[in-house]
Amino acid sequence: MSKIDIDTIRHSCSHLMAQAITRLFGDSNLQLGIGPTTEDGFYYDVLIEHKFTDDDLKNIENKMKEIIKENLPITRMVLGKKDAIAFCEKTKQFLKVELINDLPENVEISFYSQGEFTDLCRGPHVEKTGQIPPFFKLLHTAGAYFRGDESRPMLQRIYATCFNSKDKLNEHLTFLEEAKKRDHRKLGKELGLFIFDPVAPASPFFMPKGAFIYNQLIQYVRNLYEIYNYKEVITPQILDSQLWHTSGHYDHYKENMYFTNIDKREFAVKPMNCPCHMLMFKHHQYSYRDLPLRFADFGRLHRYERSGAISGLTRVRSFCQDDSHIFLPLSEIQNEIKSLLEMFFTCYGQFGFKNIKVYLSTRPEKKAGDDKTWDIAEESLAQALKSAGFEYTVNAGDGAFYGPKIDILVGDALNRHHQLGTIQLDFQLPDRFDLKFTNQNGEMEKPVVIHRALLGSLERFMAVYIEHVAGAFPFWIAPEQVVIIPVKNDLHLSYCSQVYNDLRKAGIRVVLDDRNETLGLKTRNTQTQKIPFMLVVGDKELQNNSVSARKYGEKESKSYTIPEITQIFSDLNGELNPKKFEKK
Amino acid sequence: MSKIDIDTIRHSCSHLMAQAITRLFGDSNLQLGIGPTTEDGFYYDVLIEHKFTDDDLKNIENKMKEIIKENLPITRMVLGKKDAIAFCEKTKQFLKVELINDLPENVEISFYSQGEFTDLCRGPHVEKTGQIPPFFKLLHTAGAYFRGDESRPMLQRIYATCFNSKDKLNEHLTFLEEAKKRDHRKLGKELGLFIFDPVAPASPFFMPKGAFIYNQLIQYVRNLYEIYNYKEVITPQILDSQLWHTSGHYDHYKENMYFTNIDKREFAVKPMNCPCHMLMFKHHQYSYRDLPLRFADFGRLHRYERSGAISGLTRVRSFCQDDSHIFLPLSEIQNEIKSLLEMFFTCYGQFGFKNIKVYLSTRPEKKAGDDKTWDIAEESLAQALKSAGFEYTVNAGDGAFYGPKIDILVGDALNRHHQLGTIQLDFQLPDRFDLKFTNQNGEMEKPVVIHRALLGSLERFMAVYIEHVAGAFPFWIAPEQVVIIPVKNDLHLSYCSQVYNDLRKAGIRVVLDDRNETLGLKTRNTQTQKIPFMLVVGDKELQNNSVSARKYGEKESKSYTIPEITQIFSDLNGELNPKKFEKK
Repeated sequence: MSKIDIDTIRHSCSHLMAQAITRLFGDSNLQLGIGPTTEDGFYYDVLIEHKFTDDDLKNIENKMKEIIKENLPITRMVLGKKDAIAFCEKTKQFLKVELINDLPENVEISFYSQGEFTDLCRGPHVEKTGQIPPFFKLLHTAGAYFRGDESRPMLQRIYATCFNSKDKLNEHLTFLEEAKKRDHRKLGKELGLFIFDPVAPASPFFMPKGAFIYNQLIQYVRNLYEIYNYKEVITPQILDSQLWHTSGHYDHYKENMYFTNIDKREFAVKPMNCPCHMLMFKHHQYSYRDLPLRFADFGRLHRYERSGAISGLTRVRSFCQDDSHIFLPLSEIQNEIKSLLEMFFTCYGQFGFKNIKVYLSTRPEKKAGDDKTWDIAEESLAQALKSAGFEYTVNAGDGAFYGPKIDILVGDALNRHHQLGTIQLDFQLPDRFDLKFTNQNGEMEKPVVIHRALLGSLERFMAVYIEHVAGAFPFWIAPEQVVIIPVKNDLHLSYCSQVYNDLRKAGIRVVLDDRNETLGLKTRNTQTQKIPFMLVVGDKELQNNSVSARKYGEKESKSYTIPEITQIFSDLNGELNPKKFEKK
Repeated sequence: MSKIDIDTIRHSCSHLMAQAITRLFGDSNLQLGIGPTTEDGFYYDVLIEHKFTDDDLKNIENKMKEIIKENLPITRMVLGKKDAIAFCEKTKQFLKVELINDLPENVEISFYSQGEFTDLCRGPHVEKTGQIPPFFKLLHTAGAYFRGDESRPMLQRIYATCFNSKDKLNEHLTFLEEAKKRDHRKLGKELGLFIFDPVAPASPFFMPKGAFIYNQLIQYVRNLYEIYNYKEVITPQILDSQLWHTSGHYDHYKENMYFTNIDKREFAVKPMNCPCHMLMFKHHQYSYRDLPLRFADFGRLHRYERSGAISGLTRVRSFCQDDSHIFLPLSEIQNEIKSLLEMFFTCYGQFGFKNIKVYLSTRPEKKAGDDKTWDIAEESLAQALKSAGFEYTVNAGDGAFYGPKIDILVGDALNRHHQLGTIQLDFQLPDRFDLKFTNQNGEMEKPVVIHRALLGSLERFMAVYIEHVAGAFPFWIAPEQVVIIPVKNDLHLSYCSQVYNDLRKAGIRVVLDDRNETLGLKTRNTQTQKIPFMLVVGDKELQNNSVSARKYGEKESKSYTIPEITQIFSDLNGELNPKKFEKK
């Protein structure tokens, strides 16, 4: 059984599910959409008035297992287009008719049947339903539109996972369970980090703790900027459409932009910072001594995303990128890329990401600029990667039309990969804005521009990072770092206040829990809020001038004097200052 | 002569100027607009094709002095409306005809004549032109629209200043000279702080040094927030018009807002943060233990200002306020106001503002809310001011319809006053958003909201502050704090690099000027850029392991060891941490 390709198994399992649904709900009550495989299972879209419940999913799962036991042979039938349409019209599968209508005229169209159930399908499939291993699970339903058309009635999509061994299925279910626990939308609510409101779709409101983390991330990046000599700038958010014509965004990105009219002129809310930085470069006559010039910007950007595409902090309409534009001569690219890579790896190491993947995308077929410039640019990127000792994968032809790029993906605690960093060469914008600097020979020379983002969008990074650390932020980021709990308020509170003041003076973000609640409730509360350290103070601590400190996630407490614990905390706070990356 | 009221003198001087212009350019070539007095002189608007030059202003001034010598008697004539219009039509003063048309029907309209010149005017005037003291100066011209109507041809406004003694005139001219030197638009350019570009009218681009100062101001305010227990939040910028209906902005502030359409819904770019904070308060059930709850926001705001009204950083369309909304029970107002005043005075003291004026504005005729609540609110504000020992002026009836307020004006180095802070009680927004908290009796109670801004708009504050310090920022704000200059690069550069590294490690923003330029040019450059400290290093310093330090604005240098000067600089950097205000 294990010899059968897992994708074939998942495909057959999808038919199995469709057959079970049809048996349970009756073929006259429903229309089937599409039922493809996914990375770890499959789904099927169903148009039906009844709203599937969790119980329904269990019943469908049981019915699927019954059909496996029936061990029905799976047979293939091939029809011409006309006959295929006629067949589906007869069986009243009108969504399938639409699908067939889209196929070319003279193609052979295959159907697969098992027992009473026949489905339009390219195949391949297993030979009998008995060959489908019972290691699948129906997960949940979600709304989906047939061919993404939001003007039509919504279908119900049933997601399922399927593997060829029980162990693999369980492993995956555990992974899903863990991912669910870490879901940033859930944790964002529980930890009081952010909220959403219908008056601002896909635009988060960061509550005090979330805003603190957000600002702390910016501060860390600013500290990196000091080391790597970036110059932060602040730029307008609403700019005349004329600028977006110059930059090319008006022609290529208009659908994602917001417009407003002022004094009879059309303005756009900026979706990107680049054109602002080009203008700033142009306002001053820079010389080779000023380059590389690195403008960094934490400006708020706005991009329209379809209602269907938005989700938590992962995809939002209002966000801020830690982006930068670097102006430099072509000859400096390799050095700059090397320094950029060092900065990126310093940063990703700091956040504990592992298994970092680097991709180099080279010139596409349709490209701007001459081959010689592309040669230098691609070679510079490749050489920088090599000389810095990084392994990378080439995505040939995958660069933007205006230049090659490097993308960096990081692996999180569940080994899911997320693209964070991007380094993008651009020969086009300096042309469009007619940028020039004075080179060493006193001549006017066109600079190259590097667009680069480190964390990417801060909003999306927060989503990734919340899930990576499961909401248990490291000390230097945590909005509340330490909770002090007196065992008994009447006996220990005054000593606790003293400890509280000492720690606050040392710049520690400390909370004194002096509520009239039980010790148990207070410690549980500290755990739920995932506070990095809990200091419990009772008779012993009062006598010894000490605290009993328990780190989040550990079971044991340790005793420290006040100067000892203050030093530990101060050292941990020092992690806000980047430590340079060293490749082992 | 000195017995004549200065306003009368200025008024007569304005006629004198109009007469001189008419004599020089001919009454058939120009139309006179209005010519009122100002705080320190007067102006006159003239519709004329010829563009006034500086030489013209001198000639007009001379002609005015001639007419003084002619000592023409000034006579008054009174006409009915019809006759007044006929008179002006006959003399082809059509702008005056328009002015008269706006007057009521049965009013007596006065004209004043001196020699061949007659002008529509309410008076009073001096008796003869010889009574006008020659202590006036024509300053400059500016464009102005007749009655602010931008669709009509632009008039030229000639500004002049006028006093009744030579000393006072000279004093004022010196003041103007000093104000011109300090003009933030001029200094902003010279010091590389910000630029403007036509693609974003009234929306500054902060260059690296300007952005640094901007961020440093925010950091200082954040440090205050830590002391006074504010919670920073981050909120969306584009919100459904529905929200602005709820808040009342749609009805009262629509003309100043930008709108955009998304998914067939109308959204507005926020002109204020308040509605966002109301929503956040509403999203959570707060109790009396959580109050006062202080949400602070550095969100970017956008407000439309007419093209005619915008100027430098003083009046912009895109800006950020250091605003906050404080939610609290009515009973807590007095305490909160006291603590607010302490915070405000701490802040203004830090920036070296003097002669601070406090205004209390009380209930207007048209007001929302009952008298009892107003009594409590006004009394709380007054008591807080009194018990904190501040003198204040009551502006009776000048409060907003939704609550009384305190405005704080600060005096700058030229003793000009600028409103920075405002503390505004609001009984209306909590009603409109139906806000509630659980009070000590477990009942639902409506909180009061305090809107308050400390620096006000950061952009406007930067304008005020640049002019206040004449671009010479104190050490803790300066983007570049120290310049090290080797007397000779070949002999002293390596020691300078060492000093540079030591200072950088201590967190000092230091620049090493290692260009191959003369010592004279380098020191001049440091002066022009108004860098707080210049360290010059020659043979003596090299031998003694010292530096010769000169503070900006001082003539003498002093010798320091490296540890000494590092300590001085670190102490100065400590000023970023607010020192609590203590009233003497």
